[in-house]
Amino acid sequence: MRVSELVACTGVPLATVKYYLREGLLMPGEATSATQARYGEEHVRRLGLVKALAGAGLPIPRIRKVLQLIDHPDGSLFEVLGQAIGQLPPYLDIPADPGDYPRARAVLEKLGQIYDPRYVAVAQLERALEALEDAGIPMTEERLDAYGRHIRGIAEVDIGLMPTGSAEDAVRCAVLGTAIYEPVIAAMRRLAHQDIAQNFFQKTDEQDAS
Amino acid sequence: MRVSELVACTGVPLATVKYYLREGLLMPGEATSATQARYGEEHVRRLGLVKALAGAGLPIPRIRKVLQLIDHPDGSLFEVLGQAIGQLPPYLDIPADPGDYPRARAVLEKLGQIYDPRYVAVAQLERALEALEDAGIPMTEERLDAYGRHIRGIAEVDIGLMPTGSAEDAVRCAVLGTAIYEPVIAAMRRLAHQDIAQNFFQKTDEQDAS
Repeated sequence: MRVSELVACTGVPLATVKYYLREGLLMPGEATSATQARYGEEHVRRLGLVKALAGAGLPIPRIRKVLQLIDHPDGSLFEVLGQAIGQLPPYLDIPADPGDYPRARAVLEKLGQIYDPRYVAVAQLERALEALEDAGIPMTEERLDAYGRHIRGIAEVDIGLMPTGSAEDAVRCAVLGTAIYEPVIAAMRRLAHQDIAQNFFQKTDEQDAS
Repeated sequence: MRVSELVACTGVPLATVKYYLREGLLMPGEATSATQARYGEEHVRRLGLVKALAGAGLPIPRIRKVLQLIDHPDGSLFEVLGQAIGQLPPYLDIPADPGDYPRARAVLEKLGQIYDPRYVAVAQLERALEALEDAGIPMTEERLDAYGRHIRGIAEVDIGLMPTGSAEDAVRCAVLGTAIYEPVIAAMRRLAHQDIAQNFFQKTDEQDAS
């Protein structure tokens, strides 16, 4: 297909397609003349991935890193997935010493989870737990038990639904599934609060009235 | 206490305390001279709340709105809570017509949840579901079932742990609990993925080796 069809097919504006080509995020098409090139299915797929990664808030260098991991996976798929997900926001310093992350470590030990102490999500958890303490609503044992159980349930579904085909499919699904499902979960939680609170307040009102 | 003690006690810098006083986010202290004032427990509490709301990403006008809702609640506690949580990011247009949000509506109907169609979380869910489709990993029935169940479990714990005392406590807990626990959930999910994936890849490696 021509570049105009690539634009129509992906919804990515022409200027952006050209920018991605210049930045090397999109591989060049097959030249058909000095000014024209032909593009194929792999360009559509790549452009969709770049668009989704940009939409998930990744800056260009981090999108490039994810694409490199897909094109030249170095190490086991497990390691590649970890590195790819490490490109997602929020961007925090990776723990130098796991001892620096006492709150996260205590939570992970309580949950009995295996974790890589250099994984950025450990720092993310530490910061989040610190903010809870600052706000005066620290994580209690009761809440951690329930959160741990339910979040594990969600994560099991996520891993179970991962494609087991190519490394590209796995990386795409892991990175996008991690990033793009987070706002879904946040919105669903807020809406579940509303539903539960509505029932709760109705009951309270009825009790008050009786 | 003097303003220097207020600073020491809350960890909010003096310049920021003065700024909050000017902006009316912090009520003035009791004047003890032309240049000095005395502050009390309510100033510590208010400053802690403003700090936490700012940390959760709320701009000043939205912090002011939350404080107004606490100081002058207008309507039922349920309505006040809804308005207070509506001040949290992400900032999206509130649905004019629920028909504009077909994906969110379908999910909420499937879950059998009561919802206020003008609640901003509906727009948030719609955007998030749209991004999933764009990325080629749409919400499936299987995933929605599991997500719905587990997120409801989390939300029930949240509501169950809400203080039932003053309206201030309820609003504080609802707003901060919604905002500050979202990064905790996101980090815990990423770490649960790592734990489950590690087990999963170990099993696959063992099968390959045998």
